[in-house]
Amino acid sequence: MPPLNSFSLAPELETCAWFNTEQPLYLSALRGKVIVIVAFQMLCPGCVSHSLPQASALQKFHSTSQLQVIGLHAVFEHHHVMTQEALQVFIAEYGLNFAIAVDQPSTVEALPKTMSKLQLHGTPSIVLIDKQGRIRLNHFGHLHDLQLGSIIGRLLAETFD
Amino acid sequence: MPPLNSFSLAPELETCAWFNTEQPLYLSALRGKVIVIVAFQMLCPGCVSHSLPQASALQKFHSTSQLQVIGLHAVFEHHHVMTQEALQVFIAEYGLNFAIAVDQPSTVEALPKTMSKLQLHGTPSIVLIDKQGRIRLNHFGHLHDLQLGSIIGRLLAETFD
Amino acid sequence: MPPLNSFSLAPELETCAWFNTEQPLYLSALRGKVIVIVAFQMLCPGCVSHSLPQASALQKFHSTSQLQVIGLHAVFEHHHVMTQEALQVFIAEYGLNFAIAVDQPSTVEALPKTMSKLQLHGTPSIVLIDKQGRIRLNHFGHLHDLQLGSIIGRLLAETFD
Amino acid sequence: MPPLNSFSLAPELETCAWFNTEQPLYLSALRGKVIVIVAFQMLCPGCVSHSLPQASALQKFHSTSQLQVIGLHAVFEHHHVMTQEALQVFIAEYGLNFAIAVDQPSTVEALPKTMSKLQLHGTPSIVLIDKQGRIRLNHFGHLHDLQLGSIIGRLLAETFD
Repeated sequence: MPPLNSFSLAPELETCAWFNTEQPLYLSALRGKVIVIVAFQMLCPGCVSHSLPQASALQKFHSTSQLQVIGLHAVFEHHHVMTQEALQVFIAEYGLNFAIAVDQPSTVEALPKTMSKLQLHGTPSIVLIDKQGRIRLNHFGHLHDLQLGSIIGRLLAETFD
Repeated sequence: MPPLNSFSLAPELETCAWFNTEQPLYLSALRGKVIVIVAFQMLCPGCVSHSLPQASALQKFHSTSQLQVIGLHAVFEHHHVMTQEALQVFIAEYGLNFAIAVDQPSTVEALPKTMSKLQLHGTPSIVLIDKQGRIRLNHFGHLHDLQLGSIIGRLLAETFD
Repeated sequence: MPPLNSFSLAPELETCAWFNTEQPLYLSALRGKVIVIVAFQMLCPGCVSHSLPQASALQKFHSTSQLQVIGLHAVFEHHHVMTQEALQVFIAEYGLNFAIAVDQPSTVEALPKTMSKLQLHGTPSIVLIDKQGRIRLNHFGHLHDLQLGSIIGRLLAETFD
Repeated sequence: MPPLNSFSLAPELETCAWFNTEQPLYLSALRGKVIVIVAFQMLCPGCVSHSLPQASALQKFHSTSQLQVIGLHAVFEHHHVMTQEALQVFIAEYGLNFAIAVDQPSTVEALPKTMSKLQLHGTPSIVLIDKQGRIRLNHFGHLHDLQLGSIIGRLLAETFD
């Protein structure tokens, strides 16, 4: 079981577009909920086969009043083809229906801004944020559903005043 | 998400054999741990393909100091072929390495004794027992890993004095 | 692709029981058909998860007027629990509906008689017999569906006068 | 088993780019080989999860001296994002290593030219061409590996003078 390895406050997401939500989501406005950020790229095979179905199932099994899944399209390579327009088609074709944000591209480096701030090592990555807004897990690669579920259950059990 | 639908104290298991443990396990001696009972039959296809691999993974991801998985061979049909000897071979061939008990057969009905006491409706069934020894879930059929993990995580987060 | 590695005439099966067929099947009576023998043991995990579903699908996709699948319960270990009675329950629980024979036990060795005659190395094994009754493949372990399908297609294409 | 439902000579592919081959492939130059055309779109989920892995396995199990797999990127929707540049990244990320062609876009309709000529109904589609260059199967949707393998085996068994 990966350690809940950080307690720093999660930085706000920097995004340039959102899908499947009427308004952009702000972490600061989600206090009291557990937040699961799934960083992916639409042309990352492991993201497509494992992480995005996991993210969909996770939101399906938990009310957004308790747990908010956020897909973060964190493009750090092949920017010219993983565009916002391409992502929009991808989301529709795969029938993804949880909130998805586009990580704000940087003007000075390949890594987009939120990916840099969260110090993600690639895609897929999973970041868990507790009800207080603190980062409790920052994991590169896939997590088994039982592992992820168990950690999330523990975060859901925490109180928030 | 299935409700945590009962808070009654779990009755003690009635068993006639154990595998993968030096001593029989008593629920009363496991206070402070979350207990996951996976009732199965060795010739139940859904048990073999889903529940037993799930039970194995669950124990692998959690220390027995925190969570105890108990496979319960609850034979309620075809008793003449799902014998203790057959189960022993099954456990070895499938490489199961979590604690497994044989539910005590009844002399008066097809249902074995623990299965009756727990009011299980068939196999596979999952019974979750909290640190206080109370039944918190009694589910007939399979549960998605994310669902099961999330409930277990919440039970693990509970305090026990 | 495994070679079609033998052209010797297949010896007749020696069996002590049949399921899912009104009459015992004799290879000599099946000339003109492609025969697929899937040797298995009911407590062999690889047989249960891969070979038996493959055998079921194979018969489903081909008429018995052209291709005959024969499951061969070739018990070479744990004879005391993989009995004919246990197999009968197994077949019913798993819903297997292709012809299944019980390999005749030997009185002098662990290997049953047909398994010895066919020189099988364990379970699962696949033996392919052409329309002339000749062994064309004798493979220990699993074969990918595409490989098995392709070989079978070639055998089906052969003429028989 | 789908019928081998046509014997008309396959029209030549009309393509605008090729990957994983030094030279464009011409059907007329492949007489004597069985040809498997797998029409796909890179943002078609069923293509990504089933048809392209099937195509890869098919080529892996058969020498190109006998069987030629051709992926045909037949874009009939969302042309602006399923570009040749995007396909190139997709092929690299998914590690596809069989020959892949880009269907020539039409200037007058959404359907690309080869897709129209082959009268394909969507993606994924599988077209099987025999050693004589004749279309023997034109199937919209996925085929089970055993079915596809069996048909291909029969086509491989045919003689070619």
